[in-house]
Amino acid sequence: MNNQVKIAVLGGGSWATAIVKMLSENIATVGWYMRSIYAIEHIKRNKHNPNYLSSAELHPEQLDLSDDINSIVENYEVLIFAIPSAFLKAELEKLTISLKDKIIFSAIKGIVPETGLIVGEHFHEIHKVPFKNIGVITGPCHAEEVAMERLSYLTLACQDERKAEDLSKYISGRYIKTKISDDIIGTEYAAMLKNIYAIAAGIAHGLGYGDNFQAVLMSNGIREMKRFIKKIHKMKRNINNSAYLGDLLVTGYSIFSRNRMFGNMIGKGYTVKSAMLEMSMVAEGYYASKSAYEIKEENGAKTPIIDAVYHILYGKKEAKEEFLKLTNKLN
Amino acid sequence: MNNQVKIAVLGGGSWATAIVKMLSENIATVGWYMRSIYAIEHIKRNKHNPNYLSSAELHPEQLDLSDDINSIVENYEVLIFAIPSAFLKAELEKLTISLKDKIIFSAIKGIVPETGLIVGEHFHEIHKVPFKNIGVITGPCHAEEVAMERLSYLTLACQDERKAEDLSKYISGRYIKTKISDDIIGTEYAAMLKNIYAIAAGIAHGLGYGDNFQAVLMSNGIREMKRFIKKIHKMKRNINNSAYLGDLLVTGYSIFSRNRMFGNMIGKGYTVKSAMLEMSMVAEGYYASKSAYEIKEENGAKTPIIDAVYHILYGKKEAKEEFLKLTNKLN
Repeated sequence: MNNQVKIAVLGGGSWATAIVKMLSENIATVGWYMRSIYAIEHIKRNKHNPNYLSSAELHPEQLDLSDDINSIVENYEVLIFAIPSAFLKAELEKLTISLKDKIIFSAIKGIVPETGLIVGEHFHEIHKVPFKNIGVITGPCHAEEVAMERLSYLTLACQDERKAEDLSKYISGRYIKTKISDDIIGTEYAAMLKNIYAIAAGIAHGLGYGDNFQAVLMSNGIREMKRFIKKIHKMKRNINNSAYLGDLLVTGYSIFSRNRMFGNMIGKGYTVKSAMLEMSMVAEGYYASKSAYEIKEENGAKTPIIDAVYHILYGKKEAKEEFLKLTNKLN
Repeated sequence: MNNQVKIAVLGGGSWATAIVKMLSENIATVGWYMRSIYAIEHIKRNKHNPNYLSSAELHPEQLDLSDDINSIVENYEVLIFAIPSAFLKAELEKLTISLKDKIIFSAIKGIVPETGLIVGEHFHEIHKVPFKNIGVITGPCHAEEVAMERLSYLTLACQDERKAEDLSKYISGRYIKTKISDDIIGTEYAAMLKNIYAIAAGIAHGLGYGDNFQAVLMSNGIREMKRFIKKIHKMKRNINNSAYLGDLLVTGYSIFSRNRMFGNMIGKGYTVKSAMLEMSMVAEGYYASKSAYEIKEENGAKTPIIDAVYHILYGKKEAKEEFLKLTNKLN
């Protein structure tokens, strides 16, 4: 156990809970901010999060729980954000303390809807955190399998690789292996884009396409992802590494993925609005498809799958017809 | 309908039946050799194959069925072989007619166990068919989904791309799209190797590894496949095309894959022999892992997944321990 390092997790969802569990295996005290005082009290009394990942056993004696984001930010050096991107801006507006000297790792997969920025850029542009202090934690990783202590591989990316290495010591363990990367832009965009492809996989399934087509869709998806990311940040990267292809697969092939489920409803004929109401939450890929579409309109990347999802979700196009057109663009 | 072209399918299994169905959409008469006279009579009377893919409706009036391989080979110019690789050599030994002026397309995914050659090489070396007359038909494609007329994409590869294009006209249709390739070696090895990775996926599942790990395994698998094929035949190929990555995914993620099922039993503790008995058929990947291991021993490709599968299936190594070692080699 190491008592020196001051690491906190911000967020109360499944992924936040999973990261707290990983850290608790290695460090004596983990800071943990979440909004719900009810959930905090429940964790203290019952040793598990009442709402998310409730199968994971937590150790309250190791947790410095607080519903005050400022006290957590003040007291910790490394801040791991795992707040859904749709709520991030509002949460950060509560801050009275500057983030600029903190080390920020984002475990958020998506776009900040209000600014259209990926999370790392949001921290940099809005909160003046230098890029060398911003990192990304990415899968392939379902939080549920962390709760079950099933072997998972995470990629920690930071321009300053040493910071990723430092954090990796406290994340790695019996059931977590970590890999270090300096491709913060690529890994973060991959994590965002994969949700769009998961929506596409869901739409295809909802429309009655089978496994043969899904394999073609995913194989086109990873090629499209490579083209997209290359336009934004050209560097030597193997798109088949776990942080890109692995993350795409674990989401695209998961029947538990919220994005896939959302797509499935659209494919089955739900309107966007009714699918959202039915799910009582917003799939990250919904925002991501709009941002990704706008970005590719600027940089000219060829993205037939993103285009189809965008036209269906934002252009009121029929899923059936858009996918019929899409099938002629895939190979 | 085109009555000129003389195309026959050889084999009585699911994949043979699916290809016959595709061809019957486009040509008036399809030659079809299968061993079982019982199955032939059944097809003529009942319009479906009694043993395999029996949900596919066939049109006996379009089928020139025969249990005499020589009469089919004599009467047809383009021969599509879809006989399991374990029986191919014995079937070909029945031939009294030369194959050397025929156009051969292999829809077989594997190694001819007796010679250790991939199917194209076997036709070339043993039957003196020139390489320009040898092609490969590859997925991603479950035959079952062809029966259901679900959209599927096939790749037809031939050194002489025109021959692949010619055949593609008779394969393509409402629910089949085709892509042409000149990478006959790469596509054929990919089709063989994917079965080994499907066994690995099955073993992992049987041992209790979850979806997070499967995604890492597949992402390492495609990188390993790329290294392996590059050592055998270096050329510009995008390993993320459907014929390579797509084919890996449709098999690795399919719970219907015989190879995955076989691996799953091994992971759950069956011996190789008892798993084979239980399945009452041999998984192609079983032979493939031995051949692939021998090839990489010669050419020096780094193949930790193939190695692990080989050691488990042929070296009497414990699956649990081999996979524990393997997890440290993946990333």
